[in-house]
Amino acid sequence: MGSTAPVRRTVWLDPNDAGSVHIIDQRFLPFELRQETLRDTASVACAIRDMHVRGAGCIGAVAAHGLYLAAREAAASSDFTAAWENRAALLLSTRPTAVNLAWAVDRVRKALSDADSSSAKIQAARHAAQEIADEDVRCCRRIGEHGLTLLRERAASKPSGETLQILTHCNAGWLAFVEHGSATAPIYAAHAAGLPLHVWVDETRPRNQGARLTTWELSEAGVPHTVIADNTGGHLMQRGLVDLVLTGTDRATRFGDVANKIGTYLKALAAADNHVPFYVALPSSTFDWQCEDAARDIPIEERDPAEVTHIEGWEDDSGRFVTVRLSPNSSAAANWAFDITPARLITALITERGVCRANEEDIARLFPERDPAPGPAL
Amino acid sequence: MGSTAPVRRTVWLDPNDAGSVHIIDQRFLPFELRQETLRDTASVACAIRDMHVRGAGCIGAVAAHGLYLAAREAAASSDFTAAWENRAALLLSTRPTAVNLAWAVDRVRKALSDADSSSAKIQAARHAAQEIADEDVRCCRRIGEHGLTLLRERAASKPSGETLQILTHCNAGWLAFVEHGSATAPIYAAHAAGLPLHVWVDETRPRNQGARLTTWELSEAGVPHTVIADNTGGHLMQRGLVDLVLTGTDRATRFGDVANKIGTYLKALAAADNHVPFYVALPSSTFDWQCEDAARDIPIEERDPAEVTHIEGWEDDSGRFVTVRLSPNSSAAANWAFDITPARLITALITERGVCRANEEDIARLFPERDPAPGPAL
Repeated sequence: MGSTAPVRRTVWLDPNDAGSVHIIDQRFLPFELRQETLRDTASVACAIRDMHVRGAGCIGAVAAHGLYLAAREAAASSDFTAAWENRAALLLSTRPTAVNLAWAVDRVRKALSDADSSSAKIQAARHAAQEIADEDVRCCRRIGEHGLTLLRERAASKPSGETLQILTHCNAGWLAFVEHGSATAPIYAAHAAGLPLHVWVDETRPRNQGARLTTWELSEAGVPHTVIADNTGGHLMQRGLVDLVLTGTDRATRFGDVANKIGTYLKALAAADNHVPFYVALPSSTFDWQCEDAARDIPIEERDPAEVTHIEGWEDDSGRFVTVRLSPNSSAAANWAFDITPARLITALITERGVCRANEEDIARLFPERDPAPGPAL
Repeated sequence: MGSTAPVRRTVWLDPNDAGSVHIIDQRFLPFELRQETLRDTASVACAIRDMHVRGAGCIGAVAAHGLYLAAREAAASSDFTAAWENRAALLLSTRPTAVNLAWAVDRVRKALSDADSSSAKIQAARHAAQEIADEDVRCCRRIGEHGLTLLRERAASKPSGETLQILTHCNAGWLAFVEHGSATAPIYAAHAAGLPLHVWVDETRPRNQGARLTTWELSEAGVPHTVIADNTGGHLMQRGLVDLVLTGTDRATRFGDVANKIGTYLKALAAADNHVPFYVALPSSTFDWQCEDAARDIPIEERDPAEVTHIEGWEDDSGRFVTVRLSPNSSAAANWAFDITPARLITALITERGVCRANEEDIARLFPERDPAPGPAL
């Protein structure tokens, strides 16, 4: 990366080039680390929709930076608000499931409303975007600290010195946020603290974020890990080879139900069946406080079936990316990207404010300002 | 295929060429249908180990044909029994989980013991191999008939004319047997009977037998189907999009526990959680009557991690098979090929003798000659 770029952030601004937003383009990992410079809202929308970036926190932070570019564009228009709202709607339409997108739009909109002039609005949007990214970093660091306590407790229940076995699904690593990650934050913290651990990495079909991104992150950080087919976790748990499951989420309700990468629900079922603790790590920006019924209200994104029928990989011989077909042309495919894991299967949530059980009461205790139903006056 | 070859068998003999065994080499499906001629036991062992053929019944039938070639080779040796047993041991070592392999060896060994001369032994082995294949076909046809009754009942519980939604994992189709298949036999029977149905096909990583073989079979047979990532089944069941799950098995105990392709257990958990019936279809040759404890006694094959880190597909542009790498070289991978689904998660077994619940008592009622513990005399 360039000398002005942070080493471990997924999105950043260049102080010498106000019209640009910089991201890691994740599409070529683990084989190639590319950066991309985005200069307008449309490019940011494309980067989110086509998954140059993905992951709850990262989508929110990149969208916030897109809303800063939107403010710059709107300032050149006769109707700032209409122009900015159009662009916000474009960004909102890119990915339906992750709630961080809507959260980022709300945050930046509020910042704009406090500014008078166009130039003040641009500055307000820029500041809000940076604040959102910085806050994401702080939240993930705190998740790491709280999660570390949990991992230490779990390790203490094992014979001394024995490796703690963690299974994770998809990538809830720093690539999915701005730094640290949610599910990976406790792992990085524990690794740094010298706790012996090993991570089972679900490859996470169809887009293989586990095999491509989580492996790359853990390799870079020197964390021991093994990639497995998504089918394998149940067998590992039956054999006592998993001490805990740790995932992220793209949207959580105040009742503790979570939407996460398709297949998370299956691992939660296996964890419950084998008495393996199942933890979900999330910053509070991932709560959808308005959602009443996860199964009914959370839109589950359906993506291009070509992500199932084809796969991209690296051909060792030719040293190039190749897309190959996996199933016959005559067979249709379907591609839901997320599923809902009900709160009853989740042992605890790990947030920046601490750990709580996945139920309305305990979540409200951690986030009292969000509690829509205060108790009756005594 | 050649004019003397059956159109829909996975293994056959050529009456004009006594020294040959013919198989469908499944490795290039769905893109290319190849046949292979095997002329010695070593080639048969290679074909099983390297998965030119796979699937419980198919492995048993091909091994039986290999044992016929083994008898021809043993006849040229000074010690028929030692030479034949050596070759039988070689075949037995190829795949540890499927019990049909051991079952076929026992059957052919018994046939040999009834023959006096070397030439009589060769004929006995040839006859036994053909008998095993024919019996496999008869059993699978009967499974189809019994399963059809089940599917009709399930369809009758839906609004009239509504499509029956079946989910299957891996390939328990005719390619996994000699004809018909186990899990697919009821599907083919129902399709022929005009029952409207649709099959969700798990792609079944790492070797993608669902995406490559089940899709090909169903396409050939004109059965509507959709391929999905293995992660998807739970979501479909939560949404009410699956009426029943139907799989095969590589080894079943007399208590009703089954070993099947890795990931089967996860689908069984999701089925139980969503009150979706979960059926396992198997010929009686797949029962391991001696097994006391599935989790303890059934060996779970560990295969080459390269099956997880790499995948083979068809490059549309170049029209060639290409193997691509999916994860970084720095990441290890593990590859267990099967898992155990406990009887408590199975609604019923579909055998050639009929349908029974997955418990010791009901299985013994269907196979009384196998019951090791007759009740006390009255």
